[in-house]
Formats: sequence, structure tokens, C-alpha cells
Amino acid sequence: MDLFEAIKGRRSCRNFLPESVEETDLEKILEAATWAPSPLNGQPWEFIVITSADLKEKIFQEAGRCQQFAIKKTNWKWLGHYQLEFLKEVPMIVGVIGDPEKGGIDKFQEDGGVSFHHACAAAIQNMLLAAYARGYATLWFSFFDQNKMRNILRIPEKKVPVALICIGKGNAEITPPPRKSYASKTYYLY
Amino acid sequence: MDLFEAIKGRRSCRNFLPESVEETDLEKILEAATWAPSPLNGQPWEFIVITSADLKEKIFQEAGRCQQFAIKKTNWKWLGHYQLEFLKEVPMIVGVIGDPEKGGIDKFQEDGGVSFHHACAAAIQNMLLAAYARGYATLWFSFFDQNKMRNILRIPEKKVPVALICIGKGNAEITPPPRKSYASKTYYLY
Repeated sequence: MDLFEAIKGRRSCRNFLPESVEETDLEKILEAATWAPSPLNGQPWEFIVITSADLKEKIFQEAGRCQQFAIKKTNWKWLGHYQLEFLKEVPMIVGVIGDPEKGGIDKFQEDGGVSFHHACAAAIQNMLLAAYARGYATLWFSFFDQNKMRNILRIPEKKVPVALICIGKGNAEITPPPRKSYASKTYYLY
Repeated sequence: MDLFEAIKGRRSCRNFLPESVEETDLEKILEAATWAPSPLNGQPWEFIVITSADLKEKIFQEAGRCQQFAIKKTNWKWLGHYQLEFLKEVPMIVGVIGDPEKGGIDKFQEDGGVSFHHACAAAIQNMLLAAYARGYATLWFSFFDQNKMRNILRIPEKKVPVALICIGKGNAEITPPPRKSYASKTYYLY
């Protein structure tokens, strides 16, 4: 698939068919992730492939808990409109885990740095594009508490669950949410 | 260009020709950025296009200062092998600026959340791929102190300089740095 077609065509999907993800497609998606750039070539990513109903149920419960917490905290009632059932329906979730120790020089800063987050996010964007090119729909999901997700996915304390990537066949056409034009976001400094 | 060709072919470049970036190519690169996903569709990115020798010199000076600081702190002498002259030679640098207020629900967390970083990093990955497809080489540069870069680029306190993206025609073939295979980074949870 053409690069720009993939970049513009990819949508965030919350409605999946039960059809599973082919192993060869998963391999292609994960390989794409590993070609992302990373500071000092640290490649600070790991992938946890989740297909079990039990784990998906736990993720669903945690997302629901976060949703209620966020509604209480923000008083944004419309957050309740986000249905989370797709977390149980999607055939596969790939947890992307970041290792702060494999970040750039910023890991020596007092606040620990975020460059490993940047590298993992670039890897995720590659995954979303690759999945789309292979005929899958995706969702980049990060509506969870880090420690709770560490427990669910058995991740050691020193690693960070960056996001959960839902992958499956989409069940409906999705209208692209409106984008502000690049021109309205761009400034020239002379 | 084919998506997978772009994902695998993109390199980090530190050796640029003086040839400038065509405005139509810059537009395509920035438009690609805006098609990245973002939490709650917040589109937390802004772009500062830098071509002046004076600003590039200031960025070069700041990078050199950070390099010396990092060498002292880590005692990694090999960091000194990274030549930074390309920051002055590259025809264009695009500063990608993140707005934490346009992040996801995690912005209500005590530590402020990092989801705006994720969205900006996804936008940057789109930029790198789009630039490569249009015949340009790039570098994702983040070797600077945030407050120092705020001053250089006149960014308000509440926004975050996420990275500087160097864009130009590459001056040499680059051997891809070795990647650990996806298989060695992937775990299955049942």
C-alpha cells in the first residue's frame, strides 16, 4: 500500500469482528514496529500478545474503572458514551511495553526522561500503519492505570506499559474525525 | 512509495547537502503529521519551521552544551564522537511542540501524563516516513534542555519542545544500525 494512503486512511476503530489476526500478519506488524528510530538505537520496546478472553476481561474491567474515575474527576459525562466492549470483542491486543533504561541520554535527568516513550510511540505508529496495509483496523488504547496494567500483564516494576494496541477486522466504515490543517499549526521562525 | 519500503528504508541522517526543502514537500510532510492519531482527537502538536543560520547556530550551541554535560555525567567518552555540525548544515529544522493541555484523560493525573508526547511522536514518525518518500533524509533530535529550547524558539512555558526534526537531502548512503528481531522482543500471554 502507498505510504500516504496508509497515513491518511488509518482510523481508530472501536467495533471489531471476531475474525482472528493471521500470524504472518502479526509478524509483519511487529517487524514494522522494530524499524522505528530510537535514541542511541536503544530499541526500548517489547510486545505482549494477548488473545485470552480472561485477560481481555481484566483489561475491560480496568478500563471501566478508569472511565468512572475520570468521569468523577472531570465531570465530563460524555466520557460515558465511549463504549468499552470492544476490548472484549477484539481478537488480539498487543501490549507495548517500554524500558526506561533503554532510553536516550535524558534517562540521566532527574525526572527520568521520556525519550523511551517517544521511541515506543513511533513503533506503535508503524504498527498501526502496517496493520492497516494488511487489512486490519486498530485502536491505540491507553486508558488504564500503569500499576494495575503491570499486574494484569505481569510486567516488572521497572518497565512501563505504554499502550495497548487492539487489532482486528473492522466492523464498519469510520468517518475520519476532523483535523486542524497543518497550516493552522505551523509557524515560521526567521 | 510503498509503506513497508518507507518504514524499512528510513535512516537517521547526520550528513546533509545544502539543497533546500521544497515548500510543496514540506506541506506534504506536515500534512502527514496531522493524520496521526491523538487521545480524544486533541491534535496536541505545533510545528516551528526553522531555516535561519542564526537559529541553527543557537541550536548547535545548546546541543554541544548538552553533549558536554552528558559526557561529564555519564563518563561515556564515546558520546563525543557524535558530531553536531549537521545542525548548522541541514537546510531546515522543524521543531515539534506539544501542548499538554491537549493530551488525553491522563492530563488530570498528578504527574501530568505523557499522552501528548505519544501523539506528537506518532506525528513525527509520519513526518519521517513522508520525508523519506519525498526523497529527503531526516534526524529526530532531542538532545537539548527543554527550557533552553523554549527560549531559543520563543515557546511559552506551558508548551513542550518535543523534538527537532532535521530535514534535507542526505549526503551519503547510511548502513542501517542493527535491529533486534521482533521475535526476541515478543511474549505471548494466554
